[in-house]
Amino acid sequence: MSFVDHIETCNSYRAADFRPLRLGSTRIGWIRHDNAAALRRFPAVFAVAEDNVALIADGGFVELSAAVDGVIDTLVAEGRIDKWRYEDFAVAPRWGQAPLFKLDRGAVAFFGIRSYGVHVNGMRHDADGLKLWTGRRAADKRVAPNKLDNMVAGGIAHGHGLVETLIKEAEEEAALPRDLAARAVPVGALTYRMATSSGMREDILFVFDLELPADFTPRNTDGEIAEFHLLAASAVVSRVRDSDDFKFNVNLVIIDFALRHGLITPDEPDYLAIVTGLRQQLDS
Amino acid sequence: MSFVDHIETCNSYRAADFRPLRLGSTRIGWIRHDNAAALRRFPAVFAVAEDNVALIADGGFVELSAAVDGVIDTLVAEGRIDKWRYEDFAVAPRWGQAPLFKLDRGAVAFFGIRSYGVHVNGMRHDADGLKLWTGRRAADKRVAPNKLDNMVAGGIAHGHGLVETLIKEAEEEAALPRDLAARAVPVGALTYRMATSSGMREDILFVFDLELPADFTPRNTDGEIAEFHLLAASAVVSRVRDSDDFKFNVNLVIIDFALRHGLITPDEPDYLAIVTGLRQQLDS
Repeated sequence: MSFVDHIETCNSYRAADFRPLRLGSTRIGWIRHDNAAALRRFPAVFAVAEDNVALIADGGFVELSAAVDGVIDTLVAEGRIDKWRYEDFAVAPRWGQAPLFKLDRGAVAFFGIRSYGVHVNGMRHDADGLKLWTGRRAADKRVAPNKLDNMVAGGIAHGHGLVETLIKEAEEEAALPRDLAARAVPVGALTYRMATSSGMREDILFVFDLELPADFTPRNTDGEIAEFHLLAASAVVSRVRDSDDFKFNVNLVIIDFALRHGLITPDEPDYLAIVTGLRQQLDS
Repeated sequence: MSFVDHIETCNSYRAADFRPLRLGSTRIGWIRHDNAAALRRFPAVFAVAEDNVALIADGGFVELSAAVDGVIDTLVAEGRIDKWRYEDFAVAPRWGQAPLFKLDRGAVAFFGIRSYGVHVNGMRHDADGLKLWTGRRAADKRVAPNKLDNMVAGGIAHGHGLVETLIKEAEEEAALPRDLAARAVPVGALTYRMATSSGMREDILFVFDLELPADFTPRNTDGEIAEFHLLAASAVVSRVRDSDDFKFNVNLVIIDFALRHGLITPDEPDYLAIVTGLRQQLDS
């Protein structure tokens, strides 16, 4: 294990295995070739060509969302999509633009739709150094059960804003009061493209640092985090480097934290590969 | 002017205008096509092919450096290279590896050799907010005269280390005592590829943040900075966005500072283009 290994794990997408998903002239996703073949059975919704797939269902937001949902029903029944998550993600040409349609979180990877999340580094400057609040994900989480996690993290669902999501997740995951959560400082974003069993993830993680007072202890309220520990930041960074204990994308968030706080320094032989590896260029 | 404009200015390199410079199987630079033609007159030093230029002079570090120096002499006399800078930069396959040869700083852009610099954000947390010490470059500087600059910045010359350069430049440019300069925290690196009049710059900027006490005022000792001002960080960021007052690459350093300190937030419409635009992937 190394920092670079974690970056490569999150960037396992290979363009040759996918073709673009378009709506009109806008590229909205990436479809793996075998998944494209599976979409040929829905000619009223998708036009499948050798070099792209077009969403051709008629109508606006409501009609497109319903048409895609109908297809997802079949794909879930066949096992091509694991299951419904009952959480809607927005599909938009770019961050901040009006969504074209929405689809279930469970289908995001099949269609290679870009998704957005928020990750909060809960930190504390103690007399004996910088600490990080670290959560352990519950054993029944669908993704990365039992893995270590940031203090607060979550996907941005359709119709919800970034800061709103941060405050909601902070309350649910860590019982963080709203006024404390609102002090979180935006410190950048990370991007990666990862091949998955059902397709690919093109993820944007908005990262926040939150300085916490000594009298605050996070407490989970939604069952998603089994336990929290306050660990020396340097120990967290070493554990990221040397193990797979953290959820795949949380490794990137902590590597970025370590770079910004001088915990990974230019003495690190892979420094430039690490610095340039955390943010894939986006094509739209 | 906008944040993205500054990023584009520093990334004006277009691959189609250049061919690789190789030493054996290692790509060590980028030569603009018209410059490659000018190197045909030195067949004992360079082998110029349609799709690459190879440095073929015999010998090791000393002999290669001398052979390239001989060519630079002619190129300076012809005006293809502006002038000798009398400062040696190292040419190495990768950061941290032993140099293959050295060449004058004035010739770095002609040969498209990667160069390394250090930039220090001198910052102060005052009662009325975060401040940045900002320098104005002297009127007789060859590059970017009169432009605004970081408190301390400089190129890493052959034979000198990163932290050593930081401490030396901090003393010369800002009369910063060694023990204070040594508190600078490494917070990442920026990379860009910029077309210039004589060729291209492939620059790596190692960025440091340095928290300064209220009783410290920088004072220039080497004539390179005409004056220093302590400005509100938010005003510095607005000025970067709205003007060309800062040196071209210092804009990137301040944009990165603003992202890390929450002074540019995800509300900014170009946030993702900015976040992903500060670090070009390196190919070796």
